[in-house]
Amino acid sequence: MTTRPGGRTVSTSASPRDRRVTIGIDFGTESGRVLLLDLRTGQEIAVVEVRYPHGVIDSRLPSNDEELPPDTALQDPGDYLDVLYRGIPDALVAGDVRTEEVIGIGIDFTACTVLPVTEDGTPLCQLDRWRDHPHAWVKLWKHHAAQPVADRLNEVAIERGEDFLARYGGRLSSEWYFPKLIETWQKDRAVFDAMSAFVEATDWIVWHLTGTLIRASCSAGYKACWSAKEGLPSRAFFEAAYPDFPDPSQKLGTSFVPPGRRAGTLRPVVAARLGLNPTVAVAVGNVDSFVAVPGAGVQRPGVFVMVVGTSICDLVIDRREIRMPGITGVVENGILPGYFGYEAGQAAVGDMFAWFGGRLLGLTSGDSGAGTNWYEELERAAASIPPGASGLVALDWWNGNRTILGDADLSGVIAGLTLATTPTEIYRSLLESVAFGTRRIVENFVDHDVALTEVVACGGIAERSVLMMQLLADVTGMPVTIPDSSQIPARGAALFGALAAGSARGGFDDIERAITELRPETSGHYEPSQVNTVTYDEIYSVFRALHDELGREHVEWLHRLKQIRRAASAARP
Amino acid sequence: MTTRPGGRTVSTSASPRDRRVTIGIDFGTESGRVLLLDLRTGQEIAVVEVRYPHGVIDSRLPSNDEELPPDTALQDPGDYLDVLYRGIPDALVAGDVRTEEVIGIGIDFTACTVLPVTEDGTPLCQLDRWRDHPHAWVKLWKHHAAQPVADRLNEVAIERGEDFLARYGGRLSSEWYFPKLIETWQKDRAVFDAMSAFVEATDWIVWHLTGTLIRASCSAGYKACWSAKEGLPSRAFFEAAYPDFPDPSQKLGTSFVPPGRRAGTLRPVVAARLGLNPTVAVAVGNVDSFVAVPGAGVQRPGVFVMVVGTSICDLVIDRREIRMPGITGVVENGILPGYFGYEAGQAAVGDMFAWFGGRLLGLTSGDSGAGTNWYEELERAAASIPPGASGLVALDWWNGNRTILGDADLSGVIAGLTLATTPTEIYRSLLESVAFGTRRIVENFVDHDVALTEVVACGGIAERSVLMMQLLADVTGMPVTIPDSSQIPARGAALFGALAAGSARGGFDDIERAITELRPETSGHYEPSQVNTVTYDEIYSVFRALHDELGREHVEWLHRLKQIRRAASAARP
Repeated sequence: MTTRPGGRTVSTSASPRDRRVTIGIDFGTESGRVLLLDLRTGQEIAVVEVRYPHGVIDSRLPSNDEELPPDTALQDPGDYLDVLYRGIPDALVAGDVRTEEVIGIGIDFTACTVLPVTEDGTPLCQLDRWRDHPHAWVKLWKHHAAQPVADRLNEVAIERGEDFLARYGGRLSSEWYFPKLIETWQKDRAVFDAMSAFVEATDWIVWHLTGTLIRASCSAGYKACWSAKEGLPSRAFFEAAYPDFPDPSQKLGTSFVPPGRRAGTLRPVVAARLGLNPTVAVAVGNVDSFVAVPGAGVQRPGVFVMVVGTSICDLVIDRREIRMPGITGVVENGILPGYFGYEAGQAAVGDMFAWFGGRLLGLTSGDSGAGTNWYEELERAAASIPPGASGLVALDWWNGNRTILGDADLSGVIAGLTLATTPTEIYRSLLESVAFGTRRIVENFVDHDVALTEVVACGGIAERSVLMMQLLADVTGMPVTIPDSSQIPARGAALFGALAAGSARGGFDDIERAITELRPETSGHYEPSQVNTVTYDEIYSVFRALHDELGREHVEWLHRLKQIRRAASAARP
Repeated sequence: MTTRPGGRTVSTSASPRDRRVTIGIDFGTESGRVLLLDLRTGQEIAVVEVRYPHGVIDSRLPSNDEELPPDTALQDPGDYLDVLYRGIPDALVAGDVRTEEVIGIGIDFTACTVLPVTEDGTPLCQLDRWRDHPHAWVKLWKHHAAQPVADRLNEVAIERGEDFLARYGGRLSSEWYFPKLIETWQKDRAVFDAMSAFVEATDWIVWHLTGTLIRASCSAGYKACWSAKEGLPSRAFFEAAYPDFPDPSQKLGTSFVPPGRRAGTLRPVVAARLGLNPTVAVAVGNVDSFVAVPGAGVQRPGVFVMVVGTSICDLVIDRREIRMPGITGVVENGILPGYFGYEAGQAAVGDMFAWFGGRLLGLTSGDSGAGTNWYEELERAAASIPPGASGLVALDWWNGNRTILGDADLSGVIAGLTLATTPTEIYRSLLESVAFGTRRIVENFVDHDVALTEVVACGGIAERSVLMMQLLADVTGMPVTIPDSSQIPARGAALFGALAAGSARGGFDDIERAITELRPETSGHYEPSQVNTVTYDEIYSVFRALHDELGREHVEWLHRLKQIRRAASAARP
């Protein structure tokens, strides 16, 4: 467990006596981060990170020695409770926050991260009867074993001309709710029958805190194909794909609540364990990347919000619902109440850079004697290469293409290699490829009448990589601003906690006002360089041509390589 | 200077008293190799390598400090004489060969490697008057500064529908005779006017040895666009490109002699310095890679001869002249008398592998403690990866594409990269890319009615890389044989020396008989694996698609990257 202070220290102007504090908890892939936000000053009073003891379970269950099938990614829900019961008390101590100062809690979670539970909310995997069943555990967002189900659902949806598909860029992902649920129905009917519900972890945590199951509309909208106007995809659709599959709402429920609403208050027994008052309001759960929008201080259309880390999640809000290809989804009230929330993204970013330095060059990530690591050294060298001088262009598909193409079977490409090409030039071309991929997504929004004028970027790489941020500005031609917080999602969650508490208790009634008043300072700002933009326009024309040719016109080429690879790997001794 | 014995030792069955020996001298880019061949047994009696003291002159002339223009590559002709006067006496001592045993000399040379000389054969650069003129020195084959001239000649030849172009795959190279000569005419008219002739180094050495200028038809055919039937390109063609350029035969001459003929015998003064009899016959000069055909023991059509080193030179002989695109050239008597000789090739092979390990991974080429070097270690690891398991395919254009496309402005491509891709997988994909490039060339021959049934490969990589050779077999579907000699070209040159001597003096009158009787043993043989061939057929279909798309249909994409790179590099401080 590590403790680190927020980007800013406590201001002396605000008297601690008047302080009103909310807790934002950001549940990630490997750990949860608990943040305490001062609602008067916007200061991050304390941040505590709690790592999940079991991490990502992808080889063996904690309970036995059987090897899990490929593409499995599970978690232990007990790890999430650790974040609550160790993280919140530690944060209160670290921030010197008194019980009565805390008025609300908001949480955000990776999604679609789902678990089967009994009627009282007990996870099946915590019962001896089901402990050895992999499908009784939490299926993490990146559990990809349900790809055949997703393929089947896409096939049938296209055949039937299902209208809902247009809200999801024309394609459902294997990471979403129904592929994961139907996989359980197919592979372990006993677990399927035994579960009372199959709930998003974000809803499960809120349920644990309040004692009431309130399902968030944002995860239902983005991950379970639900919309406020049209409900779920029809039963006929599911029956066409899987004839005996029961009513899709059976395990999902039918009632969903938009973000910012109050789900309830703390159960007394939970409040006592956390050292909080039972009057503390708990907000409806949320999805991790989406809360970055309010967390970063964005409350208007036209801003392209990027969460830049291992991968990139792009978020845009607009008053209109525009159905377009090339996005992950568009959901009413999906990000902020009163707006349609659009999501897009890139599948390999930080992990592509890590691949290059770590796996390809064999560099070790520890600090060197000089106090720098290889990322910094490579970036410093790459920054001195003029745009275009490498002669390289790469397609950033090391992990497939999330959007525009929504195709996990694409793979990365580097073109322009010569005997003079240096490792540094390749590294720079990978950074550039991310910027080009972003521009392709931006252009798609603009082509579909969603005007964009600026970028707000947060996440580890936004904070650390000056070169990556300047490239985003130069390649998109838009200014890029970095908010001054290392915990933008937790900050966004805390804002929803303030909304759940309401103004009467010292919080807010209006999310837009909360965002405006608690907008973080700016830690970085990048203007596009006119000279570089001209060069990158030219290189982008090659990127775009290769993107369309290898990702659309002749998608069979890269697909064939993947098929051959699978066949060869399967035959491997 | 290093001395190393041939692959085989002197047999005791042949009495040294009966021995008849010829000398083959292979003039390469950095050194010359002198080989003594026993004509009775085919044994390589001795090999002596002499490095050129001045190597490749590409930054400054030996005579002054002025920086040479980019793409310049010159040599000092005095270095070639060093090979004669140090290498031959040393080889005679090393092989314990007596003066009277030596009956002939054959030489081969890099081409087009040309120098301006006075009427008596004195190189202009050896005269004080011209010593500071770069154009007075030898222009080495890889002197690329005449690219603008080549571009102009190609443009005009295509405009005028010049028929001769069809003998050269539709495209002249900047490495050839007239681009280099016209460059001198443009850049240093005084040198142009002062030279009596502009001669191939191979002809200059023969001239030095015999006292007579006899020009070889093979270099004239492959490098100066001459053919026995049609002569040189017309004066009108040259005038259309360069209005004032004089008669093209003025510096080249008009009479050319096919390989295998006797050019003369040793000048007494030269014979004395070499420790040889003045009766020793000297063969007409030859081109280095071409003599690999007889050197490797190949004397029939249907065999695809590959010289595999830094780059690959492919050679095929046929009784018919078939004009086809996608080759470097076809020349009557160009390789063996009585045949049309076809040349093709790949521009980056050994140097692409060296780039990967050295420049990209930063490995050092020295032997490790275990007595292996990184080539061996990477190859051992790469050999354990099943075909197709990497999911990668590369286009081997790190140095442009020599044939099929004859396009120096293409560049390398790697497709299929994922977060799981390893350095070893990329290394294997580079080896595979060479095999795919070879298959593309083989298919081009077969498509144009030149049937091929087997591969004979020589050169450093053929001797050392078992994996590369097996890949060639698996990808082309043809058996690959490696002749047992590390000096195949010098061996081929020695055969021509035996032909020049004639049977009356203990040599041969018939090249085919000489080849048959002196064919080297086999050091390696690779049969295609049926299983691997099936997998490689599939991967090749992707290679071929990318090859045609990026090298032809949309050649502007990689060209644009090169243009952007040039512009960016030119603007570099």
